[in-house]
This record gives sequence, C-alpha cells and structure tokens, in this order.
Amino acid sequence: MSTLKVPILRVEGAKSQTIIDSVAIEEPLEIRLRFWEDSGWVEKPVSITMRTPSDDEALAAGFLYNEGIIQAAHIDGIKTEADNTVIIKLKADVRPDLQKLQRNFYTTSSCGVCGKTSLEALGYSHQRPNWDRNLPLLLPDFIAALPEKLATAQPIFDQTGGLHAAGLFDWEGRLLFYAEDIGRHNAVDKITGKALLEGHLPFRQHILVLSGRACFELLHKALAMNIPVVVAVGAPSSLAVETAQHFNQTLIGFTRQGRFNVYTGQQRLQPLN
Amino acid sequence: MSTLKVPILRVEGAKSQTIIDSVAIEEPLEIRLRFWEDSGWVEKPVSITMRTPSDDEALAAGFLYNEGIIQAAHIDGIKTEADNTVIIKLKADVRPDLQKLQRNFYTTSSCGVCGKTSLEALGYSHQRPNWDRNLPLLLPDFIAALPEKLATAQPIFDQTGGLHAAGLFDWEGRLLFYAEDIGRHNAVDKITGKALLEGHLPFRQHILVLSGRACFELLHKALAMNIPVVVAVGAPSSLAVETAQHFNQTLIGFTRQGRFNVYTGQQRLQPLN
Repeated sequence: MSTLKVPILRVEGAKSQTIIDSVAIEEPLEIRLRFWEDSGWVEKPVSITMRTPSDDEALAAGFLYNEGIIQAAHIDGIKTEADNTVIIKLKADVRPDLQKLQRNFYTTSSCGVCGKTSLEALGYSHQRPNWDRNLPLLLPDFIAALPEKLATAQPIFDQTGGLHAAGLFDWEGRLLFYAEDIGRHNAVDKITGKALLEGHLPFRQHILVLSGRACFELLHKALAMNIPVVVAVGAPSSLAVETAQHFNQTLIGFTRQGRFNVYTGQQRLQPLN
Repeated sequence: MSTLKVPILRVEGAKSQTIIDSVAIEEPLEIRLRFWEDSGWVEKPVSITMRTPSDDEALAAGFLYNEGIIQAAHIDGIKTEADNTVIIKLKADVRPDLQKLQRNFYTTSSCGVCGKTSLEALGYSHQRPNWDRNLPLLLPDFIAALPEKLATAQPIFDQTGGLHAAGLFDWEGRLLFYAEDIGRHNAVDKITGKALLEGHLPFRQHILVLSGRACFELLHKALAMNIPVVVAVGAPSSLAVETAQHFNQTLIGFTRQGRFNVYTGQQRLQPLN
C-alpha cells in the first residue's frame, strides 16, 4: 500500500468540488540490527526513516549496505514486525561497525543522510569504484530516452505526484530494478537492497536513473554500488558534481525532452559535434 | 554564494556544446551549541546539515527552535566560524534539553528530520497551536496567486533549478520572509530563524508557501511557528495530511495555474459553490 485515499476540496477559479484524491503514504520505518556481541545476541535500532511502505526489507538492507555497515554475505535473515519495523539478523561471526553510523548521530538533512563532519571525513566508506574501461560508448538518444522508460514503470507517481522514482538500467537500456518512495534516498536504497538480496552487487555496467534532483548522498550511494553513470531528470548539486568529478563517475542532469547536460565523465559518451 | 559555475556539455539530439552552467551549492553546515553545564561553558555539536550557504545563522537558530531546543530569549549570541560552522551561545541560566535531539540520533530521512519512533512519540515538541478564530476568510484567487508571488522572489532558482523556496506571507499576501535552499527543510528553518531573530515568533495570521512538496516534517515546523495555513505547490504526503487534520491546520497542495486542492482546514476559506 503506497497511497492513501483522502477526501479533498478541489478548487478552480470560484468553483469547487469535493472529490477523493490519492496521496503518497509517508510512515516511519525502524531498522534494527540483530548481531552477536560478547556472549549473546543483541538487537539495536540503527535508523528510523520516513518512507513509503513497499520493499521495506530491501530498503533496510540497501541502507545498511550503502552506509558501509553490511555486505550481502553478512545477512542471516530479515524479518518485518508490526508493519513498520525491519530486523536484519547478521551471521554470528559478523561484528558490524556501528561507529560508521555514529557519524549520522546528530544529523539532519533534507537532502539525505549526511551527518559527516566534512566532505573528507564522510567522503566514502567503500572501496574506490572499480570502473570497467571497456564499456561501449553511450549514444545521446539512448541517454535521452531513459527517463521516459523510468516514467513508464512508475505506476503510483501519476496518481499522487508525491513520489520519487529510481531505476537501475543495464548498458542495453533494460530496466532491471525499479523503486519509488516519498524520499529520493529511500528509492535508491530500495534498489540497492533488491540488488543486494538477489546477489547482483556490485554493478559495473549499469546506469542509475533518478526522477528528480541529484544531491551528494545519491551520488555516494551510486558509488557504493559501483555504478558508473547517473542520469537525473532534475538538477545536480555542487557537491554531487564535485563528488562525481573526484571519482571519475559520469553525472548527467536535466534529462528532459531530448536534451541533457553532462556534468562529469563525458568520456563514457560517444563524441558529438 | 548560493551557486557555483561549472563547465558542462549540453547535448541536444546529436549536437553538443560546452558551456558554463550554474549549480546550487550543497555544503555541510555544523551547528554547535554553547551553554553552561555544571561548572563551566561547554560546546557541543548538535547537528550537521547539507545546506546551501546563505542565512546560516538563521538556519541554525530556526532548526533548534523548530526542534523544541531553544527559544528566542535563550540566545546570548550567534557566530559563524570557518564558513561552515555556526555556534549558538545560550544565556548562562539556560539548560537546553538535548534529549530532544536524541530522538534524531540514529535518524535518516530524505523527507527530513524524523527519527521519532512513532507519530505519537514524535508528534509534537511544542505547545499545541493557538489558532486565531477571528481571521477573515481567504479567497481562492488570493491563495492561487501565492506561488507566483513566491517565484517572483526566487532569484536563484531560475539559474540552477536545484533549490527549494519557502515564503512567509501575511494575511494580506505580503511576503515577509523568504529563503531558499537545496533542502526544503532548511528553507523553512531559515525562515523560522529570521523571524525568531527579529522577534516575530510565533505567527498567528500568516501563511507558509512552499515551492515543492509538503511532507510531515514541514507541517511540524509550521506548527512549531503557529502558522495556520500551509500552501504547497507540490503534493502533500499522507502524514502531512494526517498531521494537519489532527491539529486543525489548513493544508493546501498542487497550487498551480489557478487551481489547488484543500486537504484540511477548509473552514479558513471563503465557502465556494
């Protein structure tokens, strides 16, 4: 259930009518980690996120992967309790580094999970990306068509106008994973989690497409998945551009109506006139 | 400085050109609180947010007010250090309740500062709003015109497409406070802080206009400022609607091209046919 029906008064000019409208559901999800510590199992809350229910277990797993806390091989099981709690149980020999989450301790950001004292400090909690140097060059028409392919897969957005979508495409333009959420970061974490739980991470020949803007944190998540190309429908931030530049990642924005802007990494595109 | 010039490759069809484009700046801001504890002054970091530089001191003060940590009378001084740190010094007799921030300890949300275990638990760290029952009823044309008035005041948005704007209007439609930021919550916190530092809080006869969507956290901030009407250009979330309903606040969304949807609190509008 991603949408809620509510009665509204729709006003146009001096006329109005009461109708039933759909809004995107926003609810808190608590992510808990169960792991072996000293002489027994402990369970600790590690995050609460406001999210649109759906793919909750993927969201939890993807968030922890992107934060550098867990890898696929660490997971012993995942369960959902009371609709709004996901518990990830780790194997008995895994000691999660919860200090990495301490960074986020006193954090707030409307552009996502930041909570790092500086760009250097946060930089990157994963290995440096391992880019494939032998990928075929991308054609402009191919890139320009990706947002439309994403929109086609986005059934709820049209109803509520309140959700962000993210899609993971392969180099031939096939949509492999799709997610949507009221939070753009959650949409990406859901994709990460789906891929993680099906054993597809890291990516090397893939493109992440975002229905909205691209801020630092989304680039960070794409780097964590080793995704070489990020295509956003909206604007990138300065820190997104700087991050992509630093890691030699391709960042494309304002991908609309056959046009787009290449901010970094144009060596992955077919040279144009 | 809210924008950064970057060289980009602009692609349209099979043609491209290298131009200089502007992107919205995204940088971390650390908010620190200096207060008297036991037998001396202590200084503690309380939040890091990714924000667009401008109105940083207002952002820091507004964030702490909206979180229920400080009031205007608590502040002894504010200073900015090294561009990306704001220190708010409290009067010696003020003991801030940092436990309220503990709620956010292990929080992440792309729709803002949430980190509360449930709507009840987080609900509301301020007094219940004290609504003015004698306000003149609002006319549809008046409401429909507010986003355009906000856009007129938004100089940077046109350049980058990457910023959210928020505006605080009085009941006659005059724009009193305006702010923009890469994070929609920061834009509202900046407005809160400006009003707080000029001694204008709480509001009772005012309207908060948002350039984008309305999620729970933005409604929460509007309630903290005692703002009776929130007008969003974008969609509201389910929790925004439920929160506004619970507190008898007026929430209007999709305010575009002469049309809008009234989700809650239609008693503040002129009755229509």
